[in-house]
Amino acid sequence: MSTNHLYHVRNPRTGEFDYAFALPTRTKLQQETKRLRQNQTTWQEKGIDYRIVVLQAWKTSIHNHLEEITEALTIDTGRCYESELEAKLIAQSIDRWCSLASDFFAPTADKTAAIPFIHIKQDLQPYPLVGVISPWNFPLLLALIDTLPALLAGCSVVIKPSEVTPRFIEPIMRSIQEVPELARVLSFVAGDGKTGADLLKEVDLLCFTGSVATGKRVYAACAKHFIPCFLELGGKDPALVFEGADLDLATSSILWGSTVNCGQSCLSIERVYVQESIAEPFLKQLKAKAEAVRLAFPTVYDGQIGPVISDRQVNILNAHLQDALEKGAVLVSGNAQCEQKNGGWYCRPTILTNVNHNMKVMTEETFGPIIPVMTFTTEAEALSLANGTIFGLSAAVFAKDWETAYRIGQQIEAGAISINECALTSMIHDGEKQSFKASGIGGTRMGAAAIKRFMKQRAFLIKKEAIPSPWWFYTN
Amino acid sequence: MSTNHLYHVRNPRTGEFDYAFALPTRTKLQQETKRLRQNQTTWQEKGIDYRIVVLQAWKTSIHNHLEEITEALTIDTGRCYESELEAKLIAQSIDRWCSLASDFFAPTADKTAAIPFIHIKQDLQPYPLVGVISPWNFPLLLALIDTLPALLAGCSVVIKPSEVTPRFIEPIMRSIQEVPELARVLSFVAGDGKTGADLLKEVDLLCFTGSVATGKRVYAACAKHFIPCFLELGGKDPALVFEGADLDLATSSILWGSTVNCGQSCLSIERVYVQESIAEPFLKQLKAKAEAVRLAFPTVYDGQIGPVISDRQVNILNAHLQDALEKGAVLVSGNAQCEQKNGGWYCRPTILTNVNHNMKVMTEETFGPIIPVMTFTTEAEALSLANGTIFGLSAAVFAKDWETAYRIGQQIEAGAISINECALTSMIHDGEKQSFKASGIGGTRMGAAAIKRFMKQRAFLIKKEAIPSPWWFYTN
Repeated sequence: MSTNHLYHVRNPRTGEFDYAFALPTRTKLQQETKRLRQNQTTWQEKGIDYRIVVLQAWKTSIHNHLEEITEALTIDTGRCYESELEAKLIAQSIDRWCSLASDFFAPTADKTAAIPFIHIKQDLQPYPLVGVISPWNFPLLLALIDTLPALLAGCSVVIKPSEVTPRFIEPIMRSIQEVPELARVLSFVAGDGKTGADLLKEVDLLCFTGSVATGKRVYAACAKHFIPCFLELGGKDPALVFEGADLDLATSSILWGSTVNCGQSCLSIERVYVQESIAEPFLKQLKAKAEAVRLAFPTVYDGQIGPVISDRQVNILNAHLQDALEKGAVLVSGNAQCEQKNGGWYCRPTILTNVNHNMKVMTEETFGPIIPVMTFTTEAEALSLANGTIFGLSAAVFAKDWETAYRIGQQIEAGAISINECALTSMIHDGEKQSFKASGIGGTRMGAAAIKRFMKQRAFLIKKEAIPSPWWFYTN
Repeated sequence: MSTNHLYHVRNPRTGEFDYAFALPTRTKLQQETKRLRQNQTTWQEKGIDYRIVVLQAWKTSIHNHLEEITEALTIDTGRCYESELEAKLIAQSIDRWCSLASDFFAPTADKTAAIPFIHIKQDLQPYPLVGVISPWNFPLLLALIDTLPALLAGCSVVIKPSEVTPRFIEPIMRSIQEVPELARVLSFVAGDGKTGADLLKEVDLLCFTGSVATGKRVYAACAKHFIPCFLELGGKDPALVFEGADLDLATSSILWGSTVNCGQSCLSIERVYVQESIAEPFLKQLKAKAEAVRLAFPTVYDGQIGPVISDRQVNILNAHLQDALEKGAVLVSGNAQCEQKNGGWYCRPTILTNVNHNMKVMTEETFGPIIPVMTFTTEAEALSLANGTIFGLSAAVFAKDWETAYRIGQQIEAGAISINECALTSMIHDGEKQSFKASGIGGTRMGAAAIKRFMKQRAFLIKKEAIPSPWWFYTN
C-alpha cells in the first residue's frame, strides 16, 4: 500500500475538522526508523559533549520558531497560556537535561572485584532506537519529557504524538531540520493508534504517556515484541486538607491544581478530602475563588479555562457528572454537564459535595476541571480514602505545618507527594519518583536515573595478570 | 477444588520417578501469598538492621541444615560438586547482600529544589510481594539470586522453583522455619507451570529465570496482570580466541566454561571462535583436556560431568548434535548423541568443528557440554559472528594482552564480557550488568542497583515556608 490516507483533525474551539495530515504507510515508517537507527551509532560515538552542543543548537532553533510552535499548539489545544508555557519551558528543560547528563557521563574509576587480580570496568550502552507515544493534553511537553534524556543517553528517538493535537509537529520539525545533526536521530511522525502500534514493532524500547486502558494494551504489545516498556498513565490525585492548614493557600492551590489546563493533566487534583471541622470555611473560599475563574471564551486570550481538547473526553466528563448527581452529589458551582459554545465544549470549575466512593467522579480519572469535595473526621479515615484507589501517581497534603503534612504524606501510596502545596511535580523536575499501582510501570522520568533508563549496563570482568585460570579445581 | 494432585519427579541419575509432591490448589496459594503480604508491613517497618539480623540468623540455620540441603540438591540434579558449591555459597551470598544493603540504606540528605523554599525528600517503598520463578540448573542459587536483595529491600518473597528439581525445598523450608521472623515473609512453594501462572496473579513484581520461550510467555502474563517483570533468560555465549592468547589458559577456561554443570548454565560458553592461524594448536590442546574430563559415573562422586538434569533437555542436545552432523560438522571428541547409563542421560565434553551459523548448535541455546569451534580470519569477522545472534547474555575474549581483549570486547553486544577468562560472572557478583537482546528484560541483578529494582521511589516536594502559592499567575 503506497496510498497515504488523510486523517482529519477537529479544532477544539470550533468543533470543525479544519486540519488534516497523511497517515504514514508501514513502509514509510520503516524507512524512517531504519534511517534513525543507522544514524544512532555516530550519535552515540561522538559522545556527550557533542550531543549537548547539538541540543543547545536545537534550543536556539526552537527559540527562532517559538511563535509558530506556540500558535500551532494553541490551535491544537484551544488554550494559549499553557501553550506559551509549554513552548517556553523547552529551553529550560533542554538546559536541565544537558546539565544532568554532563554530570551523569563524568568518568568513574574501575572497581576491584572481591577476587584478586580481577578488575571490573562498567559501561552503559544506549538502546539504539527509542519510541515515544505521547498524549494530547500537553502535546509538546509530554513528547519531549522522555525524548530529551533518551537523546542525551545516545539513543535515536522517534515520537508519535496524539492524533488529536498534531498541528505542532510541522513547526517543531522545521526547528529540527535546521539542526542537521539532530535531524539525523530525531523525528516526529504524525499518526493515529495504528501508527503507534506499527511503530512499536520497529523500536528497542517504548515510552508511553496516556490512559490506563491504552497503557495496558501498549504493555501487552511491548511484551509480545519483547522490548522494555515505560508507562506513565492516569491518576486520581487526592488533596488532603487538615484542620490548621492555611485555607487561603489550600483553596488557591487546589483550585489551580484541579482546573489548570481545564483539568487535563495527569497530576491534576481529582479528589479533595477536607476535615469536617473546617469544611465550611474551606468550601466557602473555594467556591468564591472558583466562581472568579472564567472560561477562555469568546477568544483564546480571555479567562483561564480553555475548551475540553478531545471530544471523546467530553463524554467522560458528562458521564461522571451525571453519575454523581444521580447518586446524590450536590453541585456547589460550575456545570452539571459540559456546555457547548461556538462548536467548542467547555466546563467551568465545578465543585461537587455530598460525594462518595460509589461515584465515578471519585474513582475513575475524570481529566476535567471538576472538584469533588468529601469530608473526613480522622487522619486514618483520610488516609484510607486517599489510598482507596487503583491509581498512585501523586497527592497533596495540607496541614498546620510541613512536619505534620509530611508525616501524613508518608502514608500515601503514590510517587510524588506535595506538602502544603499541590501538583509541585509540574514545576519541580529533580525529585526522582515512580508511579504506583495502575499509574505506571518503569523507572523515574526525573533526575539522572531517567537517563540511565535508556541504557543497558555492561560489566567487563578483566583478568589483568597472567595467573592460572581460577578453574584449577576443575582440572585438578 | 480442595484435592491436591501429586506431581511425580524423575531422578536424573536413574530415570525413575522416585519423588512426588502435592501441587498446591489456587486457594492454598492465595492463603500463603495473603499471609506473606500481611506480614510485609512489619518487615519493612522494622528497618534494614533488623532484616540483616534475621538474614544472618538464616545463614546460621542454613549452616545447620547444610548436609540435608546438599543431599537433596545432589539428588535433584544428579551431580555433587556443584551442589556442595551452591549450598556453601549461600552464606557468602547472604553476607555480600547484607553488606550492600547496609550501604544502600544509609541515610541521605534532603535536596533543595531549583525553586526557592521547596525542599525535596526522597524515599523508597518496597513492592509488598515479590514472586520468583526459578529454574532447575542451579536450583538453590537461582532461587535466591533475586530473593536476597528483595528481602533486604523490605519485600515479602514467594519462590516457585522448577518442578524438575523440587527435593531441596523441604530442607530449605526447615531452615526457614527455624527463623520465625523470616518464615513470616519468605516461602518456597513446590509446583509446576500452572502453579507459576497462578502465582504471578498474586504478586506485585515477578522475577523469572529460565528459557527465552517461557520468558516471553511470562512477560505477556505480567503485562496482562500489569506488574513489572524481570527476566533473565538464555544465552549463546561466544568465546573469541585471538592470535597471541595464552592457549593453555584459554583451553582450560573454555573447557570449564562450556562443560561445568554439564553445560547447564545460562552463562556457559556455547560457541567458540578461534583465529585461523592458531586453530590447530588450540584444538589439539582443547581435545586433550576435554578427553581427560570424565563423566560423574557410576557414582555421583566420580568424574566431573553429571547427567543431563531434565529429560526434555536430552531431546534438545540430540537434535542440535544431529542437525550439526547432518550439515557437515565434524565430531572431534565426545558424543554424537547423548548416551544412556543406568537410566540417566549423559553427554561427554563434545567438540565439533566445521560448524557454521546454519546449524542450531551455533544459533539456539543448547544447554549442554557441547563446544562447537569455528575459525575466523579478521577481528571484524569474529565480532560479526559473535554478535550474529538473538542472545546477549555474556561473552569472553582471549587475546595477547588484556588491553587488546578489552578493546575487542567493547564491541560485543552482551551484558558481561570476561577478558582473558570465561564466565567470570559465575564468581564475581559486583559488576552491574543487564541482559541484551532476547537474553532478558529489566535491571541488573548484581550490585546495589539490584536492591533498588524491588522498590519504588517517592518524592516529597515540601514547601516549608508560609509563602504565597506559586500559582499567583493563575488568580492574578
